[in-house]
Amino acid sequence: MNGILYGIGVGPGDPELMTLKAVRIIKENDIIAVPGAAVKDTVAYKIAVQAVPELAEKTLLPIYMPMTHDKKIMEENHEKGACSIESYLKQGLNVVFLTLGDPTIYSTFSYLQKKVEAHGFQTALVSGITSFCATAARMNMPLVEWNEQLHVLPAVHKLDSSLDQDGTYVLMKSGKKMNQVKSILEESKRDVVMVENCGMENERIFYSIPEIPDNAGYYSLIIAKEQDSQI
Amino acid sequence: MNGILYGIGVGPGDPELMTLKAVRIIKENDIIAVPGAAVKDTVAYKIAVQAVPELAEKTLLPIYMPMTHDKKIMEENHEKGACSIESYLKQGLNVVFLTLGDPTIYSTFSYLQKKVEAHGFQTALVSGITSFCATAARMNMPLVEWNEQLHVLPAVHKLDSSLDQDGTYVLMKSGKKMNQVKSILEESKRDVVMVENCGMENERIFYSIPEIPDNAGYYSLIIAKEQDSQI
Repeated sequence: MNGILYGIGVGPGDPELMTLKAVRIIKENDIIAVPGAAVKDTVAYKIAVQAVPELAEKTLLPIYMPMTHDKKIMEENHEKGACSIESYLKQGLNVVFLTLGDPTIYSTFSYLQKKVEAHGFQTALVSGITSFCATAARMNMPLVEWNEQLHVLPAVHKLDSSLDQDGTYVLMKSGKKMNQVKSILEESKRDVVMVENCGMENERIFYSIPEIPDNAGYYSLIIAKEQDSQI
Repeated sequence: MNGILYGIGVGPGDPELMTLKAVRIIKENDIIAVPGAAVKDTVAYKIAVQAVPELAEKTLLPIYMPMTHDKKIMEENHEKGACSIESYLKQGLNVVFLTLGDPTIYSTFSYLQKKVEAHGFQTALVSGITSFCATAARMNMPLVEWNEQLHVLPAVHKLDSSLDQDGTYVLMKSGKKMNQVKSILEESKRDVVMVENCGMENERIFYSIPEIPDNAGYYSLIIAKEQDSQI
């Protein structure tokens, strides 16, 4: 019988924010796939190994997932990653893929999952703490209450919307386009907080739009709340 | 020195989806507050005690949080709950409040937190797995990929919006207004899945709008994706 490919969320950074289930599944399996060329340098590995030290002794499978907009290069690398994983599944071994945050929210795992399923293999997901929940917890503030709406926008590709819906906006991965993001935020008249590298050693917090630097890092998360919100 | 009030997410139902940090903080503290009149009957308690059996031997503090739209009754009960918690904080004891899912997403804890902070006490939050992440994982599907937006709408109060933004919609707690929700979903031409009591014994899954019963339970969660989504 073929093995199962597990996509496991390791949470946003603090190893204590891993779930009991993530820890158990990593412990129970021997083949651990990690998105990155040099496994032990990846953020996901560095988080998980603190909670499960025996991870260091397991078979570590680097899956190269380039950050590119070139569909052809992405496709080639996902295909290569899928084949590498499937070579173990075919032997009846499970493969555990570590992914930052949660595997259903902007996870590179989704691409691999589709490929591996299309090739006839079984997959399963284990939830992780999302970066937006962790950032709100870090700021000790609710994201949404009562009948408020929550809108999560990635700034990877395009960001042409004005933030005109009711409720709270979360802007993820805005780093590269911060100048544009800041002017959209200004227009929205919202209360803004930004956390860079939440929960990590190099964490920085910015409490207003002017404070936010134009060259913020990749792991920057902005929470923009309505000013009449009770918070 | 006063104690700290911790708001701790116990996740959506499966005790294995509790984080290492939630488990540690419950273990380390003796006063555990739970939203409900009969502590051991509450969902949050039933989840947590499976992961931390010694919880049963701790001081369990029932905090009655009525499900009402009457602001006066709510206010009175939150004030009463805050006072009950503060009687321990004043003794230098920490109080750990258990909350379903994540404490920053539609949590009753937010009300208590504001009261207790306004009275000069310190609070802290520990993230939990949200019901929408757990439901997507249960369905083995991504919620959002690449540049997709995520919109989370609670149907507690009003639901007058058409689902006209790009990306994925999550509708939470739609149970009572399911008839209305179903017609909004029909209009949206989206692919719909609903999970009732995700991860619990009485879980039910519905794969299309006509399948969804008009009398769905409180813990019903709908994921509505764009039809041209790659999933």
